[in-house]
Amino acid sequence: MTLFTPMLRNSPLSEIFSDENTLQGMLDFEAALARACALCGVIPESAVEVISAQCQADKLDSQALAQAAAGAGNLAIPLVKQLTANVKLQDEQAARYVHWGATSQDVIDTGLVLQLREAFSATEDILEPLIGALTEQIQQHQHSVMAGRTWMQHALPITFGLKLAGTLDALLRWQQRLNEIKPRVLTLQFGGAAGTLASLKEQGIPVAQALANALDLHQSDTPWHSQRDRLLEAAAWFAGMASTLGKFAGDFALLMQTEVAEVGEPIAEGRGGSSTMPHKRNPVSCAAILTATSRIPGLMATMYASQNQQHERALGGWQAEWEVLPQLITLAGGVMQTTLDLLNGMQVNSAKMRANLDITHGLIMAESVTLALAQFIGKQPAHHLVEQLCHRALDENQPLAALLAENPQVTPYLSSKEIEHLLDPQQALGSNDTFISQVLARAAQQTRRVK
Amino acid sequence: MTLFTPMLRNSPLSEIFSDENTLQGMLDFEAALARACALCGVIPESAVEVISAQCQADKLDSQALAQAAAGAGNLAIPLVKQLTANVKLQDEQAARYVHWGATSQDVIDTGLVLQLREAFSATEDILEPLIGALTEQIQQHQHSVMAGRTWMQHALPITFGLKLAGTLDALLRWQQRLNEIKPRVLTLQFGGAAGTLASLKEQGIPVAQALANALDLHQSDTPWHSQRDRLLEAAAWFAGMASTLGKFAGDFALLMQTEVAEVGEPIAEGRGGSSTMPHKRNPVSCAAILTATSRIPGLMATMYASQNQQHERALGGWQAEWEVLPQLITLAGGVMQTTLDLLNGMQVNSAKMRANLDITHGLIMAESVTLALAQFIGKQPAHHLVEQLCHRALDENQPLAALLAENPQVTPYLSSKEIEHLLDPQQALGSNDTFISQVLARAAQQTRRVK
Amino acid sequence: MTLFTPMLRNSPLSEIFSDENTLQGMLDFEAALARACALCGVIPESAVEVISAQCQADKLDSQALAQAAAGAGNLAIPLVKQLTANVKLQDEQAARYVHWGATSQDVIDTGLVLQLREAFSATEDILEPLIGALTEQIQQHQHSVMAGRTWMQHALPITFGLKLAGTLDALLRWQQRLNEIKPRVLTLQFGGAAGTLASLKEQGIPVAQALANALDLHQSDTPWHSQRDRLLEAAAWFAGMASTLGKFAGDFALLMQTEVAEVGEPIAEGRGGSSTMPHKRNPVSCAAILTATSRIPGLMATMYASQNQQHERALGGWQAEWEVLPQLITLAGGVMQTTLDLLNGMQVNSAKMRANLDITHGLIMAESVTLALAQFIGKQPAHHLVEQLCHRALDENQPLAALLAENPQVTPYLSSKEIEHLLDPQQALGSNDTFISQVLARAAQQTRRVK
Amino acid sequence: MTLFTPMLRNSPLSEIFSDENTLQGMLDFEAALARACALCGVIPESAVEVISAQCQADKLDSQALAQAAAGAGNLAIPLVKQLTANVKLQDEQAARYVHWGATSQDVIDTGLVLQLREAFSATEDILEPLIGALTEQIQQHQHSVMAGRTWMQHALPITFGLKLAGTLDALLRWQQRLNEIKPRVLTLQFGGAAGTLASLKEQGIPVAQALANALDLHQSDTPWHSQRDRLLEAAAWFAGMASTLGKFAGDFALLMQTEVAEVGEPIAEGRGGSSTMPHKRNPVSCAAILTATSRIPGLMATMYASQNQQHERALGGWQAEWEVLPQLITLAGGVMQTTLDLLNGMQVNSAKMRANLDITHGLIMAESVTLALAQFIGKQPAHHLVEQLCHRALDENQPLAALLAENPQVTPYLSSKEIEHLLDPQQALGSNDTFISQVLARAAQQTRRVK
Repeated sequence: MTLFTPMLRNSPLSEIFSDENTLQGMLDFEAALARACALCGVIPESAVEVISAQCQADKLDSQALAQAAAGAGNLAIPLVKQLTANVKLQDEQAARYVHWGATSQDVIDTGLVLQLREAFSATEDILEPLIGALTEQIQQHQHSVMAGRTWMQHALPITFGLKLAGTLDALLRWQQRLNEIKPRVLTLQFGGAAGTLASLKEQGIPVAQALANALDLHQSDTPWHSQRDRLLEAAAWFAGMASTLGKFAGDFALLMQTEVAEVGEPIAEGRGGSSTMPHKRNPVSCAAILTATSRIPGLMATMYASQNQQHERALGGWQAEWEVLPQLITLAGGVMQTTLDLLNGMQVNSAKMRANLDITHGLIMAESVTLALAQFIGKQPAHHLVEQLCHRALDENQPLAALLAENPQVTPYLSSKEIEHLLDPQQALGSNDTFISQVLARAAQQTRRVK
Repeated sequence: MTLFTPMLRNSPLSEIFSDENTLQGMLDFEAALARACALCGVIPESAVEVISAQCQADKLDSQALAQAAAGAGNLAIPLVKQLTANVKLQDEQAARYVHWGATSQDVIDTGLVLQLREAFSATEDILEPLIGALTEQIQQHQHSVMAGRTWMQHALPITFGLKLAGTLDALLRWQQRLNEIKPRVLTLQFGGAAGTLASLKEQGIPVAQALANALDLHQSDTPWHSQRDRLLEAAAWFAGMASTLGKFAGDFALLMQTEVAEVGEPIAEGRGGSSTMPHKRNPVSCAAILTATSRIPGLMATMYASQNQQHERALGGWQAEWEVLPQLITLAGGVMQTTLDLLNGMQVNSAKMRANLDITHGLIMAESVTLALAQFIGKQPAHHLVEQLCHRALDENQPLAALLAENPQVTPYLSSKEIEHLLDPQQALGSNDTFISQVLARAAQQTRRVK
Repeated sequence: MTLFTPMLRNSPLSEIFSDENTLQGMLDFEAALARACALCGVIPESAVEVISAQCQADKLDSQALAQAAAGAGNLAIPLVKQLTANVKLQDEQAARYVHWGATSQDVIDTGLVLQLREAFSATEDILEPLIGALTEQIQQHQHSVMAGRTWMQHALPITFGLKLAGTLDALLRWQQRLNEIKPRVLTLQFGGAAGTLASLKEQGIPVAQALANALDLHQSDTPWHSQRDRLLEAAAWFAGMASTLGKFAGDFALLMQTEVAEVGEPIAEGRGGSSTMPHKRNPVSCAAILTATSRIPGLMATMYASQNQQHERALGGWQAEWEVLPQLITLAGGVMQTTLDLLNGMQVNSAKMRANLDITHGLIMAESVTLALAQFIGKQPAHHLVEQLCHRALDENQPLAALLAENPQVTPYLSSKEIEHLLDPQQALGSNDTFISQVLARAAQQTRRVK
Repeated sequence: MTLFTPMLRNSPLSEIFSDENTLQGMLDFEAALARACALCGVIPESAVEVISAQCQADKLDSQALAQAAAGAGNLAIPLVKQLTANVKLQDEQAARYVHWGATSQDVIDTGLVLQLREAFSATEDILEPLIGALTEQIQQHQHSVMAGRTWMQHALPITFGLKLAGTLDALLRWQQRLNEIKPRVLTLQFGGAAGTLASLKEQGIPVAQALANALDLHQSDTPWHSQRDRLLEAAAWFAGMASTLGKFAGDFALLMQTEVAEVGEPIAEGRGGSSTMPHKRNPVSCAAILTATSRIPGLMATMYASQNQQHERALGGWQAEWEVLPQLITLAGGVMQTTLDLLNGMQVNSAKMRANLDITHGLIMAESVTLALAQFIGKQPAHHLVEQLCHRALDENQPLAALLAENPQVTPYLSSKEIEHLLDPQQALGSNDTFISQVLARAAQQTRRVK
């Protein structure tokens, strides 16, 4: 099923989880294993080069491998069989030492960890420009006043910069979390048939150490064949980070509604049109992002359910990860890339933002008036009075300013001019700018530290 | 990602949801639409054959289509564009009438419905032999006594036939449900840009009728562009039916455990071995089934979440179905096929079943004794007494029969011979055989009706 | 946790799943069992009344029961113990015959089925006025023209009646489905310790028949202790039906946005205000509905995962249903009730609906023009031309009519007057009214049949 | 629904999320807010004590509050109303300053954060003895040889200590993760109506700082009203940690099966019996744990879906957290407590563990022989030969040792005595002990650091 790959998984992460790269990860393990075993004197040095030379995915017959995996129960068994046969053609001796001391899950899990390392790196490569693009847009729209919306209703004015700053703030936390999980996730799997490295006898730990060194991975205190919290946190990271971007896309689509029209997706030939309605400019990037993120809860549900893996190697739970984790990660990759493109090409109509603030005839500024009045008549009474006037303004389609200016409970305390000032959105942004500055400062600091 | 297709999706349903067949479903809609429009005098008769002749998936460039879909937001827009271009090469006039009156979602949804029809049919083709295989195995093992197990502990004797009859009973219900949902699911989607068939003016309903006839689909009272309960119930059917088979596979794997060893998977070269342990015979079919069914809850979560589709055409929810529904169905297809193969080749060790009944020294028959005693000393006291003796039997590793035969609260009422008889599993099967007969009778009747 | 019950579970279904009613369902089973056993001569007739008299939930100590259930593993064991003790106080003889031949799961499952029967009935009691309220609103707003929206953008005109008709259409399908599932769901559970009714010997089937009669439930061909598809379809019904209403609430909240303002929630004292913003009228009913429906995918995921129940009685999967299924159903009940209240009190601003159609200067009618032009210059060229003019209209903030009227590719074919007519929303409703009539006719017919 | 609380939520965490404590968290916020406002000169110092004195949950009418919340849309609005009324009874002046500058979500979210802080602390209080109990059991069973099982089949020998060490290893990682997330989660929510602290004007940031100090919480760079990754990671922590314990309970139940019988749950009066079968000892603790953990994937699915919160305050997603997060955490609390009790009282039958190793007549040691033979005849041939002999041993029910000792491909290389030695489980534990030591060392070190 590849018809939707360009739409949903258009990022370097997809290539990392291609069939070929999946096999290559396993072969990289086998090559490093040979090296580690030779280093510890477990297999002859002469076997290493012969084995390594065959550890290239394009030397395997992947169709045959897929077929055989159905009977074998996993990819490693037929892969080792093919690899051994290929090595044997070169050197019958060396063929004896392929996959020495390892079990299928060691190969498969470590192969996956090597893919995850590539995926983390590719992710950081998108995360950085994402943070950069957000930073730039925030700076540009720091003062673009717009309606803050709660419960999908106008609440109080904010700036578009603050809205973007919320997303940036979250992304910076995801960047921080990624640094925390990497050492745990990037860990060698090596335990042999039941997690004791039995077949390597007293050479188990030394070979494990050499193998971890060869692959530049961390070592675990025990094999984690059926303790899957490492993969869970890797999955959770991609799932959560993408969900943050899903929230952004959701807001974007809301802001792009015909009646709101405060932002627009990048315009390009063949982009977002309709098969029948020539005037349509569909938010196709938002749709792609939301399509992907709407699948994340289900994929994570499977990851959580798969934590209950039986005994020393599971039946069902482990195998469920094989397609689910790559699906999740490649969808998340698509989400990142599409969001980046959206941020770089988006159209922001700050005039429309400002204009929309006025469609409630000043009601959006009601809180300011309430607060001002509260100083004189108390919070609750002020709230009650202004609420009533707001309902009248709505029902009678009148500006709130006028109703206030003629109200006998208001006039003793507030002049028309004061009312007008209180109803000016620019006067009511509170700590909007400070919040933005705080996030931008952290972004700058965090980016510097990363570099 | 196709490395796991033979393991997880080895059934005719996978082909039905191939990229090519997905496009063909859409093209079948376009061809039928041209025919229906001509029939109603909306487009010239001469255009029909020219358009139909181009409605073959292999005439499209599916790679270009996938790329363009990313920008367009769906497959239909570039498909219609390619189709129109191809028709134009044959007949510039005819090209004007491609996709007349329809919207992208009409094409995509109806194409999916056509795939679902094929999928239902292929499913029935597996369901029938599945029911047949179960029937046969039940007849063969109607009297194979084994431990009934509750809370994963021995409870009372049952027969292996009854265990299988439970699965058959459920499958017969799924067969019944399939007949109920088919008329609702196999329904044309045709509403035009916003669900009013506006562009067809007064010809909307006649064209819809002709189109439904041409495709042999039901008609809906309103377009269902954003009412997705039809697809939900199709998904739920596959999900539930596969989950029933997942329960069977779960039990099978439990019965196949080394200590239980009552059943085995089919033996074949290269099947279920281990890369390191030559004695292993892994339950690879059960693993494949459970791997697939463990993903069903997550996939259904997405289907439910996708019910909330905005207004007349959704942004995210609709698009999420495109990959999720086929994934669910093709996994369910794999589950059915693998279960069928398992049922046909499984090894049943009825001697081991009988032997396992004895490993608790008769405790499994304790309820019989309790019931017999209850007639004399009441249910609660009998229960209490036998429970204590059971615990002693376990703790002291003694047969329950002996403890009963020497107990002064028992001896007044039950002789040693009576105790022995009460502890014979064959005597304690209750309505086991009647339950089996009832299911077999319904299977015979339901199968006859289907034919 | 009851602080949110009025908000989320305000329907008669909540009472049905109260602790007390849960216990009463189990006690109803015990009373009927005594009756059935006596009828078949299995226990003395004299015991029936004594046992029945104690089968009242308020005679149990539910706190003690809950505590004991933690140790016993289920509610039935301590319930039977308390019941037996209570009976014993009245009649020591009769106490011997409490719970005769049944197992804990028989009591618990059948008790649940009795609750489900009440729940179905209460549901039908809300479903009928829901269908009535929708019918009434559709009739009232059959001709209220509004923007049809796809991808959250204006598409073409529809009427508010058609939008509501989509929901009604789906609800009528749910009504139909309920009738299909009831016979399967409302089925007695009675199998004894391992599903063989062993302790009743040859009286198993007769007692089961008498018990089903007494409770007015269907009988199953085999006990369904670990085949849970019946409960799954009950859950799926509530989940799907509520999700249909969730889609309605989602649309409602979108229509209620400050910039759209086409509908409003019922106005009442203390409803939908803000703690700080006096002008706010929050869509609290929509929020309550969406809060509930957003939990449905997760609850259904658990129901699906729970299908894999081990052997003859499960460990984990069965027990998970105990809280999850009632949660799902009572949330669905709240959704129905809140939607009914919303439908009955909602405010519809059809003038705003009409006004919003004009905010794109006629672009929403672009398809009409395209279709008209297509007859002269072909579909693709017409589409391309009008698309370009639409973009110009948007960019230059000009009415589309003007741009068309001066375009040399248009003027040869369409006069200004024709263009004006083509751009009138009222002229472009296609089959809108027919679709509405079709649904209303089915609603009338289906309602009559139900009565 | 409280009938299942003792079974599923028996831990101090349940109390923390009681209705009363939920309200108290919100009141603690209000009291601290008054203090902070006074400190910054925003409200008069005199109001602080009067307000604080009323900030006690038992002074509220929680039933009325729940009812009013249904109309208001959240708990904060009626809470502030009741609180204000109560303050007013004491001091009309002070009543004006209740809830100054805050919005409903500030109160609700920060109240939740305060509950989370309590929950983290209570969790650490169970985590520590859990780690202690595991450590003790590992030390005791470091050398208890048992079958390592993969794919639910015997694989190679391990020790029970190693099995437990896998769980300890994971728990230590969860402990580490908890330390990482605490600073992010324990963060004040304070943004006012739209996240700008508008009503506090230039006093926004100072009040926020004083408020964070008063509550001893971290401050965020921007309000996180609709950025919910903090709560997501809190949920994910409880979900993942509990899932680790679910895996342990799953294994325990498998080991407790009648045929395996290597472990048992604590024995106590009224624990794990059956209503009909006196010999039953059901694994009720495992069932309780698995019941809870089977709901975690669904609850997390909702948490992920709820990340998409609209604009500055959500409609549906935020509100969904109110019951879901406490449900998840209190279930996780029950899982921890039940596991701790299980670990402290579990019965381990190491003799049965050793005995079960022999039921395959030595096959479990086949890998040792293969490895030994591989040195002489190569890995693949050795694997193939031993695999064939294993199948014969199974089919003919003969000890593998005998078949090896008479095989002409074996005898040239291995003597009977060598074969016997190779088949001794004690000789084949590889790095089992080192793995255990590594985890125990980390546990000691990590525990010390925590203290």
